[in-house]
Amino acid sequence: MELQTPKGTRDFPPEEKILKDRIVNTLKSVFELYGYAPLETPILERYDVLASKYAGGTEILKETFKLKDQGQRELALRYDLTVPFSRFIGMNLNLKMPFKRYQIGEVFRDGPVASARYRQFTQCDVDVAGSSSLILEAELVSIIYSAFKKLGMKCIVKFNNRKLLNEILDYCGVEKSKQDGAILSIDKLGKFGIDAVKKELKQQDISDDKILKIVNLLIIKGSNDEKIRQLKNVMKKSNGLLEIEELLKFCSNLGLEPEFDFALARGLSYYTGTIIETFLEESSVKSAVCSGGRYDNMIGAFLGKGNYPAVGISFGLDRIYDALAEKEKTVSRTTAKLYIIPINTLNESMKICQKFRDAGINTDIDSMGRGPSKNLEFANSLGIPFVAFIGKKELDEGKIKLRDMKSGNEEMVKFDDAVLSMKF
Amino acid sequence: MELQTPKGTRDFPPEEKILKDRIVNTLKSVFELYGYAPLETPILERYDVLASKYAGGTEILKETFKLKDQGQRELALRYDLTVPFSRFIGMNLNLKMPFKRYQIGEVFRDGPVASARYRQFTQCDVDVAGSSSLILEAELVSIIYSAFKKLGMKCIVKFNNRKLLNEILDYCGVEKSKQDGAILSIDKLGKFGIDAVKKELKQQDISDDKILKIVNLLIIKGSNDEKIRQLKNVMKKSNGLLEIEELLKFCSNLGLEPEFDFALARGLSYYTGTIIETFLEESSVKSAVCSGGRYDNMIGAFLGKGNYPAVGISFGLDRIYDALAEKEKTVSRTTAKLYIIPINTLNESMKICQKFRDAGINTDIDSMGRGPSKNLEFANSLGIPFVAFIGKKELDEGKIKLRDMKSGNEEMVKFDDAVLSMKF
Repeated sequence: MELQTPKGTRDFPPEEKILKDRIVNTLKSVFELYGYAPLETPILERYDVLASKYAGGTEILKETFKLKDQGQRELALRYDLTVPFSRFIGMNLNLKMPFKRYQIGEVFRDGPVASARYRQFTQCDVDVAGSSSLILEAELVSIIYSAFKKLGMKCIVKFNNRKLLNEILDYCGVEKSKQDGAILSIDKLGKFGIDAVKKELKQQDISDDKILKIVNLLIIKGSNDEKIRQLKNVMKKSNGLLEIEELLKFCSNLGLEPEFDFALARGLSYYTGTIIETFLEESSVKSAVCSGGRYDNMIGAFLGKGNYPAVGISFGLDRIYDALAEKEKTVSRTTAKLYIIPINTLNESMKICQKFRDAGINTDIDSMGRGPSKNLEFANSLGIPFVAFIGKKELDEGKIKLRDMKSGNEEMVKFDDAVLSMKF
Repeated sequence: MELQTPKGTRDFPPEEKILKDRIVNTLKSVFELYGYAPLETPILERYDVLASKYAGGTEILKETFKLKDQGQRELALRYDLTVPFSRFIGMNLNLKMPFKRYQIGEVFRDGPVASARYRQFTQCDVDVAGSSSLILEAELVSIIYSAFKKLGMKCIVKFNNRKLLNEILDYCGVEKSKQDGAILSIDKLGKFGIDAVKKELKQQDISDDKILKIVNLLIIKGSNDEKIRQLKNVMKKSNGLLEIEELLKFCSNLGLEPEFDFALARGLSYYTGTIIETFLEESSVKSAVCSGGRYDNMIGAFLGKGNYPAVGISFGLDRIYDALAEKEKTVSRTTAKLYIIPINTLNESMKICQKFRDAGINTDIDSMGRGPSKNLEFANSLGIPFVAFIGKKELDEGKIKLRDMKSGNEEMVKFDDAVLSMKF
């Protein structure tokens, strides 16, 4: 037996799990503020469900962990939370619409491990099915801004609209059959610049005059209003632009102005309207930390029945974790706030320890019978911010000796005062 | 494709997941009060780790889901959280001891599905490694009482000690080789009565006079003190009894008196000292809802190095869920507390909706453009407790029309008053 986790998986020791939990709890509370309810689906799914034509596609299926149960049924570990969401809707056709749900859970991809990709990772998805209203896109934008604000991070939300992208390509004379490829190339503008986009478009057999037209639009700069004004000048009628204007109006109702970026495309072909990407400011994490969009056709096609317009976003928990971890100055290996060191007063110290817990303070107590200095070392190594020494003298005075581990200050305080000084 | 979850697995729709989350959050907060820190290990483990001689044993291995990754490595879905806990310690030998961790996560057993057993279920484990002190057992007892109190349920914690059981059997003359079997039989006293125990002991080739001696001890009734007094009368020297007395002393420091039940045995053979079982009062759930005990040899044997005394308990989330669900009177399909119905005031209503969210109230708003009565029906079907109508008249007065969905009362209230009336 080799003591290892499987390739591409990892443990989250307490010092990491505490931070991960903080992110998850913050996201949950924000999702719930906006009326999204939690859903849990099993980690195991039937293989035929995950392999369905309108599910994740063949590429993702290659990376799907397969297994069998005792009855030789073909099962798999879920590779995302969207297919289970669709399956759940299909199994619960009496669900009231719109159905707003969030789900935070582990997903699995048996991909190459060389590129630091994990084979088990956590997805945080927020989706709503059953409504076409752009109110929902505006709410999702607001969820993103709220979540990062509560996590103490600055972000910028960029958005675009698939309809607009297709309309732009129509206007430039690009054939429908070449539009998906062209959109993927345009998506690279931000990362690789205009020349790379030109080159890629040329490789797709799009003529120079058409590329010139596209580029002339792509180089439009300015505020959201300015961009919209200039696009309107060339494109007389655009449903995409109408949706963009409505979304901006709804966002302004919520006090927000996301950045309209019409080079934003997102790779996945199932998007049908708004697309959203979020980037952190003042962080070394440069990739998108929250993305999504509207996918009005997917669930209906997957279920083969019904009309389920849908829109959703997914938070990249691992990237957010990395970004937050680099900001954290102190590491806690425990959630305990206070560590009690009895000095020949075990029974009385246990009683006092219980009083702190009853007062809502996460408290630990020596269970090794160690001396004060060994105990101090232990509390310090775990990053516990306060230590209380309780000896005979302290008991006689009805006090504890409270040490602030950061400053090293020690003072004799009464129980109530200790509770107060630790809470604030 | 058949729209089903795999056999033995299930979805938790919002109305169930909300309750499940409440239990999990309560447990987490109590575990942290006692200085336990969260740990997350992967759902996938190496098969050789789970199949190790000192891990879960051959019976459990028959029910282990096996799979392979692209590199043909043998993996498995974890069947408990104890083996991963031991593996984690083995991979982190510089961990400060005692190491107090809790873990809440999915585990998998590919067992028969006929008996309503689930193949995926949630375990909530609290364990500490590295200390032999009975302070920890007392804390675990306190965690159990606190957790169920916070969940609004009454429970009774019963405990015993494996050392005492062996000492009783020594005293009664039962050979060491027959003691494990005898303990399993004694464990059935509570469920099947004294005659069943006698019969089983006889089947194990234990002579009638020895059985009589055992039975004469088993029928001792009374308070904890009374039981201890009577046992002391017959057994002159007992380490088990000494530990029981110390545990009761420590529990009394925490204001608790669990019930000493020396017929309690628990099936698993790896327990070495205290064993704990918890039952609900006033509930149709009769099985134990939280169990555990001390297992001083397992981790060391598993790792093949080091001395890791350990004690832990595991909460049966599914049973607790069932017990709590039967007490719940109202079903919520969402966490939203307020549902806003705009009446030709969409933009203004969105602004007010955002104000409620900023005030910390989970709020949803119509995104279907439905009329008031359809919207009321929707809010009612989701179990949202308050609805706000916002029409021109309300805007003119700077108020909203707030409807208490339970009583049907409606009143015109200002925003601040609405926030207050929904919070309390």
